Formats: sequence, structure tokens, C-alpha cells
Amino acid sequence: MSQLRRDIVTGEWIILAEERAKRPTNFKKKEATKEIPAWDQKCPFCPGNEHMTPPEIFVYRDPESALEKKDWQIRVIPNKFPALKRKGKPSYLKESIYEAMNGFGAHEVVIETPIHNKTICFLEKTQIAEIIKTYIRRYKALKKDPNIKYIQIFRNHGEEAGCSLVHAHSQIVATPVVPQKILNKIKGSNNYFKEKKRCVYCDIIQTELSLKKRIVAQNTHFVAFTPFASRSPFQVNIAPYNHCPCFCDIREKEILSFATILKEVRLRLYILLEDPPYNFTLFTAPVKGRDLTGFHWHMEIIPRLTTPAGFELGTSIYINTVSPEEAAQHLRGVKI
Amino acid sequence: MSQLRRDIVTGEWIILAEERAKRPTNFKKKEATKEIPAWDQKCPFCPGNEHMTPPEIFVYRDPESALEKKDWQIRVIPNKFPALKRKGKPSYLKESIYEAMNGFGAHEVVIETPIHNKTICFLEKTQIAEIIKTYIRRYKALKKDPNIKYIQIFRNHGEEAGCSLVHAHSQIVATPVVPQKILNKIKGSNNYFKEKKRCVYCDIIQTELSLKKRIVAQNTHFVAFTPFASRSPFQVNIAPYNHCPCFCDIREKEILSFATILKEVRLRLYILLEDPPYNFTLFTAPVKGRDLTGFHWHMEIIPRLTTPAGFELGTSIYINTVSPEEAAQHLRGVKI
Repeated sequence: MSQLRRDIVTGEWIILAEERAKRPTNFKKKEATKEIPAWDQKCPFCPGNEHMTPPEIFVYRDPESALEKKDWQIRVIPNKFPALKRKGKPSYLKESIYEAMNGFGAHEVVIETPIHNKTICFLEKTQIAEIIKTYIRRYKALKKDPNIKYIQIFRNHGEEAGCSLVHAHSQIVATPVVPQKILNKIKGSNNYFKEKKRCVYCDIIQTELSLKKRIVAQNTHFVAFTPFASRSPFQVNIAPYNHCPCFCDIREKEILSFATILKEVRLRLYILLEDPPYNFTLFTAPVKGRDLTGFHWHMEIIPRLTTPAGFELGTSIYINTVSPEEAAQHLRGVKI
Repeated sequence: MSQLRRDIVTGEWIILAEERAKRPTNFKKKEATKEIPAWDQKCPFCPGNEHMTPPEIFVYRDPESALEKKDWQIRVIPNKFPALKRKGKPSYLKESIYEAMNGFGAHEVVIETPIHNKTICFLEKTQIAEIIKTYIRRYKALKKDPNIKYIQIFRNHGEEAGCSLVHAHSQIVATPVVPQKILNKIKGSNNYFKEKKRCVYCDIIQTELSLKKRIVAQNTHFVAFTPFASRSPFQVNIAPYNHCPCFCDIREKEILSFATILKEVRLRLYILLEDPPYNFTLFTAPVKGRDLTGFHWHMEIIPRLTTPAGFELGTSIYINTVSPEEAAQHLRGVKI
């Protein structure tokens, strides 16, 4: 029999219906992928094609090979088709009974490697640590703008995850409003804190570490686990042990540990599910001005293996056909 | 420049970024579809294959051709791979700090026509009216169970909308909890009612009728429009003029009017977007026990033309690349 499970933070339910996994359409077979070259002359993210992108905001060069201008390791550029732009100031607009705002904000792209066909799980840990440092740097820069209320760092990989360019990249969108989903997470964690005087995420981490059955990986500063109310098969959350509301306050000593677990989780997913399409999203505190006592930054990695349909759109109750316990067991079993 | 727009009921923001529509991947080209036959010997929903489905819950036969047992027009069957089952009673389960429930509920399939390749927009209005009556009948039957808290009626069409069988069908899922998304809609509409002493949906309808620019179709009892804060390109909402919280209280005289507008909207989408994948979801009041003064049932039709990615998953702010004003204009322009 299936089971309903409740997200302890947001109150959202999911349905765990393992019997439905028998349906042959649930996990689409991947079509044979074309061989991807290490450099593509048409790719705007490849070295030598820098003129195809807007001027860069930030560039990281390997200190040891920084002689040639082209020897960048990471580039941050404005998105060529930005969802939001840093132009003027955000202003409310009224259209009859409705409320709107001009599209103020920022939309940046982090090109994670100069190598066209390098999937992030095969990058060096130190390179991933530099990507994380780049996120922090951009986060702190965008945060200075008093009109920015939230900064979303995310990655799309694979067409089914909304990715249009193969070359490894992630994105940063800064919004002039705090998204409802973040407000819900904050509300849930604050309510929990008021009642129990403890952070709900710290409690989740402690629970998962003691139960062990949903753990995917762990190291000095981080744990990765399949959440109890996973919305999708093989969802993996990564959280620091250290209670900290904002990602940008990550401690220097934690960065390599974060890079290491990120690489490990991605590699386990890559091997088990044959390079699945996925999104990661980094949940962090709004930029300022809220009670965040009970909040704790974390990352969600969502493989895109099933298609949310009318039921999910109508109820926001996701039907998941693989239990997080089974998913974690499979992921732990991968030899890396 | 793009624009942020706020859903007046839920408070959720969307980003209208029309410039991004230039991205070639935004609207995937449809692959040439195979010719679909009028009858398929492998299809469990085709006449003659009734033994391939669980025993039927309800059947509608055309009164004029009811001599042969096989002459059904609509069949309701339990889903062969149900997300929830009506077995025992719902009971709360506790797993350490988490909350769960056994998978109590119902999951039914409404086979909308005996003809395998009949897309619903080419059915007779009277047949669509019978489908609506079937929804009402099943809604009222499921509602009698005191353990059912919400009933979700929805339809998936096309693979990208999570549909696995071509033969036209919709689904009914009854849940032992009120979904968070419905609670949010109720909360938003009740807050509006408290403040303005008017139903927010009645106000939306009046606003759209007077502005005209987002109207897609209208008739005696219903209006179809592209909502101000559309989450997806070509989203169309349909609502009755009559203020009524629960779909099952639709008046007899409204049924054919609902069928007519449903057919018209689907036909306009079919022609304009070449039979796009889509979901419809029917938003109605929870079964009992809530203050529903400000709620008003309605339907959302969501063509699945774009892929929500990491930004949407992280923030629940959807990026829409076609303005509802433009979408409505295109839809109105379709010759039917």
C-alpha cells in the first residue's frame, strides 16, 4: 500500500506509491547521446568564443597558468536572455485589481569549466571549491544592492531539466521579492523553533545520522541524504552540520568539504542513473530583515526522472515511485 | 524589460520575460506523430478490451444504442496502479520526528470515449456534458466517505504532460488530506473576502470582462481567460459567473455551457499550438468543514510548452515567455 508523507518544514504532503514504478513509462530510457567534443566552435561558453557572450562580470584564472588571457577556469557573465535586469529601481505597478513590478533584478551565468564536455562530477574538488567561492563572491556582491531581496543559485543539467546549453554552467538570479516558497520554508522552520526551541534542519540532520537508512554520503562538515518526504525519485539534500541561515556565511574550512560531498553525490547519481537530467537549487536566507533563527541553508538535488502531471499541478502533492530509503541504499551501493 | 506579476489569490509571483521567447528551445517542435487508429487491440480503454481493466465503477451508455453491452460511451474504472486506495481507514503514522499516513484514498480513471483516436475537442458537446455529469456523480459518491477530504479531477494529455495512454481519459484522485495548494488558495480568497467583502474570483471575472484583453471565450454561464499572472505560456482559466465554492454544486443549466466553453478552449489550443500536451486541473472546495465564503471553483488548463527548471523548483516563481495578453489575442484569432 502507498503512503502519504509530510514535509516537516513546509507541511506539503507527498505520496509514496512504489507500485506505480511498475509502469514502464516512469523511467524513460535515455537515448544514445552523441559524442560531445572537448571544444565546440559554436559554443558561447568555450574558450576563444568569449566575444559571443556579454562582457564578463568576474573571471577566475588558475594562478599557475595565468599568463595567457584565455586561461580562465571560471567565468561569470550576465545571462544573454535575462529574466531580470539591474536597471533603474524596482517599482510597484498597479493594473486594475492586480499587482506587478518592473523586472528589476539580476541574472548571471557561471561557466564552471573551460572544457566543453566536462560533466561537473569529473572536475577536480579544488575546481568545484573555486565554483563555490565564485557563488559566494557573486552572492556578496549582489547582496549589497538594497533592492535585492533574495538570491537563487541553481543549476540545470540535461534537456529534461530545462538546460539549453551542454557546456557546464550554473545560474544566479537575484529577485526584488522574497519568493513564496522561501517564505513557506522560513515560516515552517520558525514555527518549529518556537515550539521546540531547536532548528528543524538540525533536528533532521541528527535524525538522519542516527537512523542511517536515508544517508547517501557524509564527511567532516556535510551530510547528504534522501529526504523523508522526497518529491522525486532519488532526490538528495545536502546540508552543513553547522547551523547557519545564510549560504554566504559558510566558513572557509567548510568549502572543500562541500565541494567534496557535491562531487560524490553527483558522481553516485551519474553512475547509478546514467547521467540523469537534474536541477540543484540552493536554499538560503533572504538577504535581510527577517527573523531567521530557525533557518539553515541547504541544497536540494532533484533528478528529473518523472513528469509532474495534472495531479501535482492541482494539489502540489507529488507522487514519488521510489522510496527515499531504497534510493539511498542504491546510491550508497554505487562503487566510486 | 521583463515584469513581475503577482497572483492575486496565492500571492505567488511570476516573471514575464518575453525576450526569452527568442530562445529556440522554448517551444519544442513536435515530432511527426504516427497515425493513430480508431481502435487498438492493445489498448485497455478500447471497447472489447474491458477485461484488461479492473471492474468498472460506473458506465454511461447512450440510451439510444444501449442494446449491446459493449455500447458504452463513458466508463469509470479504478486506476490499475493507484496512487491511493480505499482500504481500511486513514491513520497517522509517526516515524521519529516525521509524520506520515497510510495511502488511503481513491484513484479512478474516466474513459471519455470508446473511440481510441478521438481527441476530446472533437467530441460532441453533449458527450462532453456527459463526461462532466460523470465527474459530478463520482465526486458526490466519493464525498460521502467521511475520510475523504479533497477530490482532485484532472486530465493529462500528451507525453510531456505525464500521459502514458493515448486513449482520451481523465482522472479523479480523492485524498485524506486537504492539499497545501488548495489551503493556500482558500487562505488567499478568504483574506480578500475579509478585506473587501467580495469574492476575489468574482472580482477577477468582472475585471477580465471589462478589460477584455485577456478573454479567450465566453458564453451564457462561463468565461475563459488567460490569467494576469499566468505561470505558463497559453495558460487558460475557465470559471463560472455564478459564485459557487464547490464544483459539484454546478447547476444543471450550467453543464452544457461548461461543456461548450471547454470544447471551444481546447479546440483553440489544438489549432493554434498543434495539439499541445496539456494538463487541466479542477480547483474546487475541500469536501467539508472549512470557511469557504470567498472560494469559487474554477479550472486551469496548462499547456506544457516549457520546462520548469532549477529557478522554478527553488523559488516557485515561474518564468513565462508569452504574455497572457498576447496569448489571448492569438487564441481569440483562431478560426473555429
